[in-house]
Amino acid sequence: MQKSLESVTEIINAHQDEFYDYLRLDSVSTQNLSILPTVAYVKDMIERTGGETRILDDLGGNPVVYAYFKAGPEGNAEKTVLFYNHYDVQPEDPVDEWETPPFEPTVVDGKLYCRGVTDNKANLVIRLYAIEHLLNTEEGLPCNVKFLIEGEEENGSPNLNAYIEKYADLFESDGCIWEFGGKNENEQFVIETGVKGMAYFDLFVESADVDIHSSLGAVVDNAAWRLTHALASLRDKDNKVLVDGFYDDIKPPSSSALKAVHERTVSQKKISDIYGLKHPFITDKLDWTAEEALAFYPTMTICGLLSGYTEEGTKTVLPRKASAKLDCRLVPGQDPKKIEQLIRQHLDRNGFSDVELVLLKGQKAFRSDIDDPFVQTVRKSAEEIYGGPDNVVLSPTNAGTGPMYSFGQHLGIPVASSGCGHAEGKAHAPNESVRLKDFEEGTLHMVKFLQQFKDA
Amino acid sequence: MQKSLESVTEIINAHQDEFYDYLRLDSVSTQNLSILPTVAYVKDMIERTGGETRILDDLGGNPVVYAYFKAGPEGNAEKTVLFYNHYDVQPEDPVDEWETPPFEPTVVDGKLYCRGVTDNKANLVIRLYAIEHLLNTEEGLPCNVKFLIEGEEENGSPNLNAYIEKYADLFESDGCIWEFGGKNENEQFVIETGVKGMAYFDLFVESADVDIHSSLGAVVDNAAWRLTHALASLRDKDNKVLVDGFYDDIKPPSSSALKAVHERTVSQKKISDIYGLKHPFITDKLDWTAEEALAFYPTMTICGLLSGYTEEGTKTVLPRKASAKLDCRLVPGQDPKKIEQLIRQHLDRNGFSDVELVLLKGQKAFRSDIDDPFVQTVRKSAEEIYGGPDNVVLSPTNAGTGPMYSFGQHLGIPVASSGCGHAEGKAHAPNESVRLKDFEEGTLHMVKFLQQFKDA
Repeated sequence: MQKSLESVTEIINAHQDEFYDYLRLDSVSTQNLSILPTVAYVKDMIERTGGETRILDDLGGNPVVYAYFKAGPEGNAEKTVLFYNHYDVQPEDPVDEWETPPFEPTVVDGKLYCRGVTDNKANLVIRLYAIEHLLNTEEGLPCNVKFLIEGEEENGSPNLNAYIEKYADLFESDGCIWEFGGKNENEQFVIETGVKGMAYFDLFVESADVDIHSSLGAVVDNAAWRLTHALASLRDKDNKVLVDGFYDDIKPPSSSALKAVHERTVSQKKISDIYGLKHPFITDKLDWTAEEALAFYPTMTICGLLSGYTEEGTKTVLPRKASAKLDCRLVPGQDPKKIEQLIRQHLDRNGFSDVELVLLKGQKAFRSDIDDPFVQTVRKSAEEIYGGPDNVVLSPTNAGTGPMYSFGQHLGIPVASSGCGHAEGKAHAPNESVRLKDFEEGTLHMVKFLQQFKDA
Repeated sequence: MQKSLESVTEIINAHQDEFYDYLRLDSVSTQNLSILPTVAYVKDMIERTGGETRILDDLGGNPVVYAYFKAGPEGNAEKTVLFYNHYDVQPEDPVDEWETPPFEPTVVDGKLYCRGVTDNKANLVIRLYAIEHLLNTEEGLPCNVKFLIEGEEENGSPNLNAYIEKYADLFESDGCIWEFGGKNENEQFVIETGVKGMAYFDLFVESADVDIHSSLGAVVDNAAWRLTHALASLRDKDNKVLVDGFYDDIKPPSSSALKAVHERTVSQKKISDIYGLKHPFITDKLDWTAEEALAFYPTMTICGLLSGYTEEGTKTVLPRKASAKLDCRLVPGQDPKKIEQLIRQHLDRNGFSDVELVLLKGQKAFRSDIDDPFVQTVRKSAEEIYGGPDNVVLSPTNAGTGPMYSFGQHLGIPVASSGCGHAEGKAHAPNESVRLKDFEEGTLHMVKFLQQFKDA
């Protein structure tokens, strides 16, 4: 172990400039920024490490990078691991809440800050470092390694399913290491083996052709009120979705998945401290616990609201239009298009047929079988790196979303996460970071996993 | 009449450049723009017309312009009319919905477009033109005329009450012609003798110190949901305010005020056509008619909403803060500070003590006695200019707001409106305008009124 750590630390230090330049690329997919330069940069990093690459772009969208590293002569050529990563990042706004420049990697108190560092550029880099370390050993790479690195994950991966379906033979493998992963607020290493799905909507209301002097509010309705009442009708203030049929198609979790979740404890206090929460958890009045809600139950979230006058001071106006962004995290069994239909029907039935509903992106949820040998090898290798079973948690479903369903459906493989994230990593928020210590440990875990998977 | 018209037309034409330069001054009080240059410009216009001026600025806020024109030798020096005007205007946003430059006066199809033209720069100018016309006649000015021209009306006139109270002797008069006025959607000339009051609020909610990845929405509430539910609890979708006690202090209108309102008909179809309304009037499910609602009942309006991500595309975030602007139009008996208390109590009682409520401006409503001779002289002179009783409407209360309460309280005088506005004038909205024809008729009405008031 000590020898591996020294070698890994040397590799990390040797490639710091390369990594920082990767972070400086502002590859925001929703704004279509720096996509092709980032693809070229990823290709170079892989080839420098010793892999073959192929750029897939024949199905539209941002290019998908395929990479391949062949097992060494002493390795097991029958075994193949697929790493899934993405080179795109979230927008950096609100910019004025960043304490360092969003796209300039900056180390403060052992943490490296940059947009996209934890989600998910560091995770690509540590996997390449693990491969480089193994290629430098006498034994060489213990198994074949493939990568699928896409550029639209932060935009809902609209084209990934088509690429995986068409190139299913190219990506054939025995299991997939997911793009994210890392430690929870209790400093336990969490292995996620499922994700929630997503139905993300724009809502629009229009009440007039022009903004109107608010004195006419005595008789004229306005878009802001219409939207407010429509939204309030969708979910109550205790987090229960009021849309008829919303919960109907949920597929119950397996008994081992339930057991795994019931062994976990989500610390309300720690999460409140990390984010500075002003309210208690909204699971208090529901039939499920916080742990169950995060793993097994869908959400409905207002991500944005806009109407009328929003500057300082007063303007007395009936706003002619109002809009909201609504994000539903779905669970296995729920279909984004059906959820769209149910919300549409709810709005119509409740007198809100004037509220336009547009599905911007939809993704189905996925859960791996946590008893699969691939998943268990990820767990066992993590226990060796992170200090035993008490420090490793096997999670049947992450509360977040990703295109895992396509991997399960077209490749038929289990999925498990491993990454260098930490509980205060602030993915999607200002001051995103990874801890340098986690960066080293994450690399070591990938080394250990590849060594053990050879014989799993 | 014909001779007066010719003379008035000449005066209007002669001073067009002066008027247009007045319109070009972007005197937006909520943004503190061009205030002192506009005061100097107004002073010059009055002195050029032959009046004395005095700038009052010892009580803070934007300066108040006092003006005085003495009755001629054949006039009645015992009679004094006070004109109330304001030189400030509303902000011009949303700028991209203007079809002409907001601060460049532009005539299209007999209408003069400019921010502030109908609210209320044209009304000051036509009053000065009427005085100039009368000063040019052999009889001279029939009575004394005073002006009170303030610069904070669009910001809720926060200092006007103090100026009127301190300078009550200076502004002593027999009645006040209000700043606005003009024709309704039926082309009737409307004389307003009261205004609604105002309580304008900012609402703020904060749910965390940072924006959070929306996957945590399974357990963490967010500011946008809190605000949405708080707002929805304040007023139902049928326009009934749900705040306990909100309607309790309303002073019932007098029988002559009620009678006057019941003689009017507000055309839903015409108002819908003018503004391109997408919904029917929201008085359908209330106990009062549209006419009564506009005159006698208070409103609660969302003027603005802002939270989280509001750009194109998707961002999956729990917004850490949300804000709304809420505007209540009040009626006689209602006190803005008491309304603030009632809303605060409502929020607390309904579990929204986390919602911050800030009263940005408050004004009480006012109604004149419509049987007062001053009001009746405005009506009779209007009937001569505008074509008889069928074309003139005496309105006990305008649906809008103004600082009329201070005039009634400190000067003890009745108030009535006369102006050159029209139903499609779009005060406070893009493409604000006056019609050139109304501009001439409005000047003639002021001439006729001053002549008749001499002996009223």
